[in-house]
Amino acid sequence: MVEEKVDNILLEARGSDVAFLVVGDPFGATTHTDLVVRAKTMMVDVKVVHNASVMNAIGICGLQLYRYGETVSIPFFTETWRPDSFYEKIERNRNLGLHTLCLLDIRVKEPTLESLCRGRKQYEPPRFMTINTAIDQLLEVEQKHGKSAYDEDTNCVGFARLGSEDQMIVAGTMRQLCTVNFGEPLHCLVIVGKTHPVEDEMLEFYKIRTENPEQKGNGIA
Amino acid sequence: MVEEKVDNILLEARGSDVAFLVVGDPFGATTHTDLVVRAKTMMVDVKVVHNASVMNAIGICGLQLYRYGETVSIPFFTETWRPDSFYEKIERNRNLGLHTLCLLDIRVKEPTLESLCRGRKQYEPPRFMTINTAIDQLLEVEQKHGKSAYDEDTNCVGFARLGSEDQMIVAGTMRQLCTVNFGEPLHCLVIVGKTHPVEDEMLEFYKIRTENPEQKGNGIA
Repeated sequence: MVEEKVDNILLEARGSDVAFLVVGDPFGATTHTDLVVRAKTMMVDVKVVHNASVMNAIGICGLQLYRYGETVSIPFFTETWRPDSFYEKIERNRNLGLHTLCLLDIRVKEPTLESLCRGRKQYEPPRFMTINTAIDQLLEVEQKHGKSAYDEDTNCVGFARLGSEDQMIVAGTMRQLCTVNFGEPLHCLVIVGKTHPVEDEMLEFYKIRTENPEQKGNGIA
Repeated sequence: MVEEKVDNILLEARGSDVAFLVVGDPFGATTHTDLVVRAKTMMVDVKVVHNASVMNAIGICGLQLYRYGETVSIPFFTETWRPDSFYEKIERNRNLGLHTLCLLDIRVKEPTLESLCRGRKQYEPPRFMTINTAIDQLLEVEQKHGKSAYDEDTNCVGFARLGSEDQMIVAGTMRQLCTVNFGEPLHCLVIVGKTHPVEDEMLEFYKIRTENPEQKGNGIA
């Protein structure tokens, strides 16, 4: 992980050019902001080459980027840890008619509980939240809070492998998207707010056809 | 303009490969969504190569992208036309502690009033709103509405030519940024919401030093 190697990266960068490559735009994650802060504190020059990010690439589904509210993250629920601070944010966005981008949990290099106890480093296999799991969790939280922020009939757009050749984009209700197999990671989910006619026209191309829920979308790649 | 040439583009695209290049990510503008809708309606295959956009490149100032509310556009005021629907949106974002990206007006290929009357095509010289003008207009609107959504002491970040070698990034209050000469276009402005310590640390590098308001920022290029 970046956090563990950052000192080496910065030490090297004091005497030579070091490139640090990331997926997406570097400033999508606090980790990278922190890396830049530390570099600047050490008087290391930093040059940033920006890149597309999930936060703008989702524009491909036709929902206008300036009509999104606050972005939320959906963490994997465990038996004892079911944080749902995203609920209030989604509710707010929806009350304002705004779309919500839900970033889905990624668990890589998580130490096993066993290894934590024994002090030896052993990691869980990587896990990436699917759209199906995200919707299950979202609906569970709605049931708990009961403030009708959204429900099974709320329109959403599911994205898998956005930006790659085999990307998949499907628009439909939460209930419909739950039946879709989106395949390999990464997945993300947009909860649709109030739409403009141009947005509707574009979403139409991605709409799920109920007679064939396993379609690969007719996504533009 | 794209709108005028779109039929030719699409006709050509039916028989051959046509590339259409844009600044930023293609889906930052409704025009491009509309182009894709029309292409798909004509059964023209569309392939999108995503790119960095101002909407994620602003992450460079250290304010976290997921802490932004709805994006607003600030149009050039004229003597008779002073639309201020952005005010309510900024107010909402600020009440929620969210940052606001203000996209500043760009006027290119605007027909002159004279040419409209005579039916001959003559265009105004291109105009790009500066951060200074944007702040003037913002403060005028605050004065009119008087709901204290923001004021001269509200923290902002001004960006000029973001992503280019000579980009300029300056953090300061509205009053301070008004005294800065940001130079050539394009400019955009972020109104800062509630900040996290990591955000503050990063903003610190871009803070205006009052003894030298004409500084070029100490922006990382």
